[in-house]
Parts: sequence; structure tokens; C-alpha cells
Amino acid sequence: MTQPRLTAADVQALLDAKAKPPGALGRLDDLALRVALVQNTLQPDPDPARVLLFAADHGVTEDRVSAYPASVTAAMVRTAAAGGAAVSVLTQSCGASLDITDVGVNADLRDVAGIFHASVARGTGNFVQGPAMTTTEREAAWRAGTDAARRAAEAGVRTILPGEMGIGNTTAAAAVLAALFGWTPESSVGRGTGVDDVGLARKAAAVRAGLRLLPASASPLDVLTQVGGFEIAAMAGAFAAAPSLGLVVVVDGFIATAAAAVAVRHDARVADHLVAGHASAESAHRRALDALGLRPVLDLGLRLGEGTGAVLALPVLRAACAVLRDMATLDEALALGNAA
Amino acid sequence: MTQPRLTAADVQALLDAKAKPPGALGRLDDLALRVALVQNTLQPDPDPARVLLFAADHGVTEDRVSAYPASVTAAMVRTAAAGGAAVSVLTQSCGASLDITDVGVNADLRDVAGIFHASVARGTGNFVQGPAMTTTEREAAWRAGTDAARRAAEAGVRTILPGEMGIGNTTAAAAVLAALFGWTPESSVGRGTGVDDVGLARKAAAVRAGLRLLPASASPLDVLTQVGGFEIAAMAGAFAAAPSLGLVVVVDGFIATAAAAVAVRHDARVADHLVAGHASAESAHRRALDALGLRPVLDLGLRLGEGTGAVLALPVLRAACAVLRDMATLDEALALGNAA
Repeated sequence: MTQPRLTAADVQALLDAKAKPPGALGRLDDLALRVALVQNTLQPDPDPARVLLFAADHGVTEDRVSAYPASVTAAMVRTAAAGGAAVSVLTQSCGASLDITDVGVNADLRDVAGIFHASVARGTGNFVQGPAMTTTEREAAWRAGTDAARRAAEAGVRTILPGEMGIGNTTAAAAVLAALFGWTPESSVGRGTGVDDVGLARKAAAVRAGLRLLPASASPLDVLTQVGGFEIAAMAGAFAAAPSLGLVVVVDGFIATAAAAVAVRHDARVADHLVAGHASAESAHRRALDALGLRPVLDLGLRLGEGTGAVLALPVLRAACAVLRDMATLDEALALGNAA
Repeated sequence: MTQPRLTAADVQALLDAKAKPPGALGRLDDLALRVALVQNTLQPDPDPARVLLFAADHGVTEDRVSAYPASVTAAMVRTAAAGGAAVSVLTQSCGASLDITDVGVNADLRDVAGIFHASVARGTGNFVQGPAMTTTEREAAWRAGTDAARRAAEAGVRTILPGEMGIGNTTAAAAVLAALFGWTPESSVGRGTGVDDVGLARKAAAVRAGLRLLPASASPLDVLTQVGGFEIAAMAGAFAAAPSLGLVVVVDGFIATAAAAVAVRHDARVADHLVAGHASAESAHRRALDALGLRPVLDLGLRLGEGTGAVLALPVLRAACAVLRDMATLDEALALGNAA
């Protein structure tokens, strides 16, 4: 016998019966609802939760699209593995675990302990000149993502939070989103980790050049192959695994949202598993979230990626589920008053 | 020898040296800065944290300013004491403790175990007809707040989060803010827990009547006496105790902000200890925060009070401090890369 399928109306009825004016906990209601429906229970719980961090390099950095040299990616992976990156610190502070995969950094990271080594290549090709990756490479990177999601689910994890490290990847993410949603290059790019106006123009030019090489009827997976990145493909794979694994997925910033968009376009069922962690300072992010029907939980001006904006939203998600699980109903509260 | 006084520049220099683009963690920087300066350390930590919940009733409910009957206050205190209120659930979920004081509920709550009994009176007088409380009552309510803050500090608590329960108290808070900032009654009131247009007009009329009885040169304490509430006075007392006890204080929603405004007007040093937890759905709240120079951490559409919007911001405050304490600097990150 299968568990009867919970409906949104079932969950909303319990939320409205709680000892508070209807809707007085604002966004907590729809967060609790989302997790309850994914987990098919009125006792939802996002924990345990795990950040899945994927790192890779980008050939398009040849076109000077980033304020930082590509070598920073490798240094940041080593720092994350050593517990000193922003995501390491925030993951611990917010009560999640951290799973790191080298899916294509342009460095030999085999000496780094405690991370998963699934390097597809030493960075993508420059998508301005040709496909970022081959179909085989895309499949391998995607699989690194589904593998990480499956490892998490097998360890009992109920919420995954995909994050990334990859100098140049706001340009790749902008190209992916422009291709999927038909945006202009100029409206898709932003300042990333801090490029100036000239850098911004270089990013738009790179996106424009990349999109020119894209076939007219490109599928979401074709887009990934042509202008994506290995960490974007891996995140898309992790998002895509959510329905079959019954996981909630918290979407981080601009790059994770591009990966989520690929996954949703590839399989519409993914959308029901998503929670948007935060509104990135990257200008096109809010538009991408709107296109996916997502409203961010936090708006703290973050523009770092790594999963930081996802993991910071985890305590709010946890609190929302606790309300649905543990808060008294108005009837219970009034009974307490009358019994006195 | 006293510890040399840390400056904002000292803290900002360390934040900017972290392994991230300057400012890439957005609001986390100014939150870490605030706690570091209050605690005078580059190793700030908001924990342990405690919600101080004060409950009282309001004579102005005679004028039908709330969607709920005043008897709900007592029922909600019993529910909070039993662990079933929103604040009980969120406090536990967010890793804080909870200290509840009956400072003037219109019910005999002496049978309720595990709460502090400091009832000043069975609710305030109706401020439409005369002062809400006597000077002696205001002092007693204020003291209940400083007592709770001192209990917390003596138990090692480093962050307090004042919250309230009190049917009718959005009207009292609106009157307090209108008096302190010279606002019109109409621009000060909002829908509270859910009054309709007629109820909203009744709230504005009550505030107008209350302000007419206020002497022209009323001090912040006079305002409290005339149109405040016992729980508002207690929260103001808790806020006012922050400088001498070295505590960080997270400001909850509309009512807590009114209490914070009284405390800041009474003693300007209080302002440096404040963090605004969230933007309430109550319309005048954002204006009150602006007047205090505060930017809310969260904007989740909450309109419940109880300290819920403060305690939900605690994990963000905790994460911000963890970044300053534990994140690697860029030099450390690059050294890791070079050592490989």
C-alpha cells in the first residue's frame, strides 16, 4: 500500500489552523508547504542537509571575462577542503555537511584529501571559439552531479544545496540563461565578482559569440554542451536527480540558477523540488528566478556563489518545517486557556 | 589594563582580507562588524542567545482596535509556556533559549510554571481616556525588562531578542512611534493581526485621542506612560540595559521597534547595540527602522511579533560572525595553492 498523496490544501489547512492569524508567518507557510509536498508528510524536516560543491575552470577566461585569474579556482578548492572558504564556514554554522567534487579544475588536485575526484578535463574549451565541451564530457560532468546527489540520499540526506567554484562562470551562466530564455547578451551579464564596464562589455561580447555557434533548435543539454561549464552541468545533474531521490533542492545564486533552469527545461518535475535561497546581486538573477517561478528567501546582497546563499536559507527552511510540525493549533491554545 | 577599543576600520580590514571579493558577502559584513564592536573582539559570537518574551494586556482594546479578543493574550502565554507558540518553536529551531515574563496580562497566570511573574497590573488603562499607566507602574514594567536582560547576562547570554504578546499592542506601538517621531495617527497605524478598514480607522482615532492627552514636551518615558504598554516598557528596559551589560539586541517587528525607539531616545548609546531582525508587514515599520538607522536582515512577510522575526535572523547573525572568526584570508588561500 502506498502512502496517500498529500495535497497543498491539506498542508494549508493545517498551517491555517495554527495558533496565529492566517498568513502571519509570511513566507514560512510556502516553504513548509514545499517541503511537506516533496516529502509527502505533515511532519516535514529538511535535515540532514548537504551542500554539494562542484568546481571547474572555464576556457572563456581567455577572453578576460573575470576580475580574477583562473588559477584562483584551484586555490579556492584547496581552501574549501581545508575548511577556510566562505562555504565551509557557513555550512558548519548553518548545520549542513559539505561534499566537494573537482569536476574539471585546471590543476592537478589529486593530492587534496576529502574531496571527490571526478575531473572531466582541465577546464572547458573557450565557447567563443567552439563548444565548451563534448557530449561525452557533458555526460560525465552531469553524472558527477547525480552521483553526489545519490551519495547524499544514500547517507539519509533530505535536502541538497548545490554550489560552485569556477572563475569565469558568471559568463557561462549568463550564456546558458540567454540561450534558454531568449535574452540578449547585454541583459544577461552582470559584474560577477567585480568586473568594470570594459569587463562587462567583454562578457556580453563573449556571450554573443557563444550564442552564434548554437544551433537554432538547441535542447537544454545542447546549450550546456555549447556554452556551459562542467560545474554547471554537474549542478544540473544534481537538480535533475531530485525527483527520483525525493530530495528538496535549495537553489543558490546566479550560476546555480542557470543549472536549475537547464534541469527544469530538461525535466519539468524538477521545479516542484526547488526552493530559492537568495536574490543574488547579479542583475539578471531575479529575472531568472521569476522565469522559474521562484521567490528568494533571503536578500542579503551576496554575490559569491559556492552555495553560500543556499545554506544561509537553510535555517529559515528548518524553522518553517518546525512550525508545521510542532506549533500548537488555535484550538489547542484556547483549550489550554480554558482548562486553567 | 583595559582591552584596547576595536575600531570599525580594524574589523573592515579583516573582512576585506578574507578569501572573497570585497563586499561579496553583502550584509554579513555589517552584521559581523556590529557584533565585533559590541563585544570588542575580532572573534565575535552571538551565542548563547535568548528570546525575552513579555506579555501584557491593553485597555485600548475596549475601543475594538484588534481583530482578536483580549483574552487571547493569556491563552498565548500559556501556549508559549507549553512550547506550542510560534516563538517557542522558532526559538528551539534557531538555537536560542526562551525567557517568558507576565508583565501585566489581564488574567491570573500564577499557575503557569516556568515563566516569570512580574505582573504590574491586569492590563493598562485605556489611553484614549487617560494615561495607560502610572509612573510607578512604568518603572516596575521597565524593571521587569532590565531584570530579564540581567538574568540573561548572568547566565552568559551575549545576545537578547526581546519579543511580546499583547492583543491591542500594535495600536499602542503606533501611538508611541507617532509621539516620538511626530507622525500622523493615520500614517502610524496598520492592519496588525488583521483588522479591516473600519478597524484601521478605529486604531487611528484611538491614537489621535491618546496623543491629545500627551503634554507638549513629553519625554520618551512620558510617552511610554501615556500611550505605551507594560510589555513595551519592559522591552524598552531590556533594550536600555544592553550598553551596561555589553549585549547585542536583535529588534523584532513593529512593537519591539517602538520599544527600541523609546530606549534609543532615552539613551543614544543603545543604538550601537541593535540589529534589526526583519521588516514587518506593518506599514509604518520600515519608516521606524529608517528613523533608527536600521536595515532589517530578513523580509519574509511576518506579522506576528513574539520575537519570531528576531529569532529567525539569529542564524544569519551567527553565520556573519563565523565568517569573521573562521574564514581564511586571501593570502592564506593563495599560500595553500602555492604550497601544493
